[in-house]
Amino acid sequence: MITISGIPEMKSLANEARSQNLAIGFVPTMGYLHDGHMSLVQRARSENDVVVASIFVNPTQFGPNEDLELYPRDMEGDRHKLQTAGVDALFLPESGQLYGPGYQTYVIVETVSLPLCGSSRPGHFKGVATVVLKLFNIVRPTRAYFGQKDFQQLQVIRRMVSDLNVDVSVIGCPTVREADGLAMSSRNSYLDVSERKQAVALNQSLLFAKTMFHSGETSSRIILDAVVDRISREPDARIDYARIVDSHTLSDVDQSDSASLVALAVRIGKTRLIDNMILG
Amino acid sequence: MITISGIPEMKSLANEARSQNLAIGFVPTMGYLHDGHMSLVQRARSENDVVVASIFVNPTQFGPNEDLELYPRDMEGDRHKLQTAGVDALFLPESGQLYGPGYQTYVIVETVSLPLCGSSRPGHFKGVATVVLKLFNIVRPTRAYFGQKDFQQLQVIRRMVSDLNVDVSVIGCPTVREADGLAMSSRNSYLDVSERKQAVALNQSLLFAKTMFHSGETSSRIILDAVVDRISREPDARIDYARIVDSHTLSDVDQSDSASLVALAVRIGKTRLIDNMILG
Repeated sequence: MITISGIPEMKSLANEARSQNLAIGFVPTMGYLHDGHMSLVQRARSENDVVVASIFVNPTQFGPNEDLELYPRDMEGDRHKLQTAGVDALFLPESGQLYGPGYQTYVIVETVSLPLCGSSRPGHFKGVATVVLKLFNIVRPTRAYFGQKDFQQLQVIRRMVSDLNVDVSVIGCPTVREADGLAMSSRNSYLDVSERKQAVALNQSLLFAKTMFHSGETSSRIILDAVVDRISREPDARIDYARIVDSHTLSDVDQSDSASLVALAVRIGKTRLIDNMILG
Repeated sequence: MITISGIPEMKSLANEARSQNLAIGFVPTMGYLHDGHMSLVQRARSENDVVVASIFVNPTQFGPNEDLELYPRDMEGDRHKLQTAGVDALFLPESGQLYGPGYQTYVIVETVSLPLCGSSRPGHFKGVATVVLKLFNIVRPTRAYFGQKDFQQLQVIRRMVSDLNVDVSVIGCPTVREADGLAMSSRNSYLDVSERKQAVALNQSLLFAKTMFHSGETSSRIILDAVVDRISREPDARIDYARIVDSHTLSDVDQSDSASLVALAVRIGKTRLIDNMILG
């Protein structure tokens, strides 16, 4: 595995690969890699000639009171995992290079960025869409891989790619979970032992919502009441949002159907966790 | 010259050319072509293997009270000019194809879009940056050509390309003028005989500003007073803006230097004309 930090060097490698008609699979990450990330890498490895992973903790997607500075890092561990998984190139751009002096251009995906995390984290998806487009322009992937745990992010990127005629296949991959069901996330490392136990409430409440739906309940209000009730049993849990939305538009639905998505953001102590599940 | 209206067909032609290492020169236009446009086409022809021109009157860069519906069109004349100039492919996308159902993604170049025309025409450069990025993604040009008459547009596009790591050389070309100095513009066709005579005041006032600067005057206020005075002598002229700005940031400068730009927008009757000149 080669490591590339310069944008021109990364562009040059990508252009060389594309000019040889090699398919580039790309997994953009913020590092501190877990089995969720690695499932994206494995899928990229199986479907492409060249696999590029990037690690970049993107400042423009963090709000002023968020955890940019605290975001966990483990470069040596990450490098070992990516190398073992058969990644060809690790792209490690620097912030000052991606956002140079006078930087001022942003991509706004107007509608699907608004609800859910877009409402709790203003500007977050503007930062995500912008950095992903920049990385796409540098890495020129044939296919790019994103986890469904960040479901809204996936929809924002799909919409951006379609709207801006970007030539890449965006591939959403299933959420990978710990043995007790907690969705894998770099932020799980913030949890203490007690919080870690309480965090399973997100997945359990989603599973219960799915069970209710399969038992015939379609009222989003009734399903959400049960979800909120389950989460509220944890002493350190505070719900940021709990919604049932159309999985394409992300707008609220009163009557759930099999394409509806239950989407959660919950603080466990100081740690904000998200999870989601399609009901059908 | 082949004519292409489908986005997939245009992408496919572009990908084929790029895979053969052919350089693509691109001239995006809104049609009703004049010698200014044709100077871009000639330069593109001389510097590239394949020349693509597009004609698309982009709705997202027009405000609600602007001349989208009235914008002049002459498809047969345009086609003849482009064919004669040696264009290989004319791309004629349809609005419903570029902006399909649920379209919601826009590119914002925050700072250089704000003053001058950005202030008079809110949302204009958002529409310009967005459609140009879309066209770049479809046509995949090696080089793209824009006139310096639309100086702010050129700076917005340069900034977007640099900020978003787009792989294209943006080439600004000198303003082409009528015999009496009026900058060529499709909108000149709106002028009646009397207005056409008055319109020469834009270029004459810019030339006078340049003469003042070369005679040693550096006070932007004094130069602009003379510019305004010259234009105000025309009975049907109303100044939208007359500014001296830094030619990179487009922010006002009190003391002019050789890199300063005098930028004008003037209504002659109902027709809004723009022009500009670097003082040095």
